[in-house]
Parts: sequence; structure tokens; C-alpha cells
Amino acid sequence: MLFRAKNMEKKVSASVVNRLPRYYRYLTDLLASGVERISSKELSEKMQVTASQIRQDLNCFGGFGQQGYGYNVSSLQAEIGQILGLNQGYTAILVGAGNMGRTFATNTKFEARGFQLIGVFDSDAKKVGTALAGHTIQDYATIQDFIAEKKPKMAILTVPKDAMHNVAEELIGYGIRAFLNFSYTELSAAENIAVENVHLSDSLMRLSYKLLEQDKTTEEEE
Amino acid sequence: MLFRAKNMEKKVSASVVNRLPRYYRYLTDLLASGVERISSKELSEKMQVTASQIRQDLNCFGGFGQQGYGYNVSSLQAEIGQILGLNQGYTAILVGAGNMGRTFATNTKFEARGFQLIGVFDSDAKKVGTALAGHTIQDYATIQDFIAEKKPKMAILTVPKDAMHNVAEELIGYGIRAFLNFSYTELSAAENIAVENVHLSDSLMRLSYKLLEQDKTTEEEE
Repeated sequence: MLFRAKNMEKKVSASVVNRLPRYYRYLTDLLASGVERISSKELSEKMQVTASQIRQDLNCFGGFGQQGYGYNVSSLQAEIGQILGLNQGYTAILVGAGNMGRTFATNTKFEARGFQLIGVFDSDAKKVGTALAGHTIQDYATIQDFIAEKKPKMAILTVPKDAMHNVAEELIGYGIRAFLNFSYTELSAAENIAVENVHLSDSLMRLSYKLLEQDKTTEEEE
Repeated sequence: MLFRAKNMEKKVSASVVNRLPRYYRYLTDLLASGVERISSKELSEKMQVTASQIRQDLNCFGGFGQQGYGYNVSSLQAEIGQILGLNQGYTAILVGAGNMGRTFATNTKFEARGFQLIGVFDSDAKKVGTALAGHTIQDYATIQDFIAEKKPKMAILTVPKDAMHNVAEELIGYGIRAFLNFSYTELSAAENIAVENVHLSDSLMRLSYKLLEQDKTTEEEE
């Protein structure tokens, strides 16, 4: 793989990796609107981060920009996609067809984000057999066979908070090694288990901080 | 305010602020399970970050730990809550009672996260008048009067992607100065407007990266 050769000796920091999806989204939008080249200054204005931050982040991967010439949007987007593994065709199942599961399954462009959703499961007999985002919801009781046969790479957990740890443990037993967890309680990463926990309410607290900063500025101005 | 006196000369970095909600959640859970003191080592094991990262982060606020004695969980939780502004009683409205709006309104403990949800709006006549999370959904056509009267501090945008920019512009015109945006397209922060954009699919891309790292490790071991 191209980027590994460039980066053999350099580990990309977690905070850069955290920012990559946002670069990827912006570059994808630029591509869709026909932009072929962009300077770090323009990209910086669009994304509201400093141009030097952008240059620093993108230099982690060998640097794609040329002084005074800007970035080639298409190459940079492709390269970031490759770094993120979006070209790997990873398969995913979704467990829990409640509010969060429905929302995520319905609104997410899985394929553009590197994944193929291959199954949706719930334990509620009223939901099993009904449709969700082009899938027929399957009975959670049959998930072990499904995993044995289809070997999905990861599971999206949109089960109730109290059920999450049990479900995760079962799925690990069945061979799942990666989780995207929306269940309002954290799943700890363990050896060989990749975890991404999403806490929607963290964004609420971050906004509270911004509001407080806003109030302080207003007070100082008054 | 106590922490401002301590921090008058020191601006807390964005990445520390981004991590504060997670500290707050962990400390709240510890408090709920009756833990009064915790060392940075124990907290580090629980949170899977290094003890030195924890010490560094918490030192930004003057430091609450004593060498060999650990952190007082209750004071630290209260102080982080204060730094985040969770004690300010900010008011919020939610605009858009679709899948995402229902999920967020139903699953979020607003008051524990510093906010009071005071109104839910949608423009769909079929939804107006129905109940959501203890609120009666109000007609979006009446939102200007509501804002003029109740002066909510911020709006949660769970409207369709295509509608987001128009809705945000209208609400800014009506006096809203802060947005939590779930609308799958970014709202740019402007002067005096606080914005927190949430992109659920970014977590999918981050997990893809982790899967790729996992694959590489397995390959190297084989």
C-alpha cells in the first residue's frame, strides 16, 4: 500500500486520525462541486481551521500540496480514503432496531463511508420480519449462524444501555472484533477488539462550554 | 467564578475541552457508584488514556489532585461541570421531529447535560400536536413568537440536510445564537454564533481506520 511505504517510520497521531473524516467529507463535497485544486488557505477558510494546521495534518502522510499550487482534490481525497481504509469493503451488521438504530441505518451512506451493511437484527418479535433501510430485520436469536456464515467485520450496537455489555460479549464470542457503539455507555477496547464509542450528549456539553465562552465575551464587551 | 480566577492567563486548549465531557461522564458514574477518591492511575485504567494525559488535562484547571492521595471525585466532577457551564440552566429547543430528533429527544438526559428542553418544533402537520419526550410538538410556523417570548439559548437542528441552512438562517434572524447541528451537513460558526456539528458517519470512518490497523497487526503477526 502506497501510504505505508511513505509512513513506515511515522505513526499518525490519534488527533490527526480523528480529524481525517472531516477532511474526507470536505474533499468529497469539493469534488462533487467540480473543484480540482484547492490551496491550504482556501481549505482553511472553508473548514475554519488554520492553514498551518491543515499543512501539518496532511504532511503526516507525506504531503500532497505543492507550494503556490495547492492540493489536487481528487488525489488527496483518494489518499485519505485509503488511509482510512474506506476502500476495504468492510462488512457490518446493525444490532438493535430502536430509534437510534433506525436513525443510523436510514441516514447513513454506508458505502461512501467504507462499509457494506449486510444485516439488521433485533430481539423484538414485533420488529423481526419488518423492513429497515432496505433490509429485513432478522431475529437476534439467529445472529450466531449469520456471523458464522457471513463473517461481518464489525457490529453497530444500537441496543439499550443495560443490554450493551451482554450483547457485546456474546458477539465477541461469535467472532466479532470491532464495534461502533451508540448505546449511551462505553465499551472498553480490549486486545484485538476495535471500539468506537459515540456519545451524542458529549456534543451537548461542548456546546454548553461554547455558550459560556460566548456569555463571557459578551460580558467583557458590555 | 472560581476557575476563572485560576485560569485568567491560561486559555484551555480545544482538545482538552473536547475531552472534558468524557471526564465528566466518568466522574458522574464513579460518584453514582459511591467512589469518593480516585488516583490518576485508576482513572487512567478505567478511561484507557495515560495517567500523564489525565494529570496534564486536569492541571489546566489548577489541578485537583494531591500526590499520593488522588482526586476528590465529587469536587472534580463539580468543577468540570462548572467549567463546561452545566450549572447555567441554558434552555434549548429542538427543531425537526424526524428519526434523529425523536432519538435525541428521547434518549438524552438534558438536565444532567446542562440544558432544559423547552420546546419541540416540526413543520409536518401530521406531527404537530403529537407528543415527543414529554413535549407536544409545536408548529414550526409559530417558532418566531415562541423564541421572542421564551428566549431559548440554543437550537438543536435535526432537520433534513437540504433544509438546514435555511432553518438556521431564520432562527439566527429570530435571535438564536447557538446550534447543535445533526443535519448531516456542516453549519459554519460565525461571529457570535456558537456551533457544534455532529457527524455520526465520522465515527464509522474512524472505526474503518481502526479495522485497517487491526488487519495490519494481524498480518504482521502471521
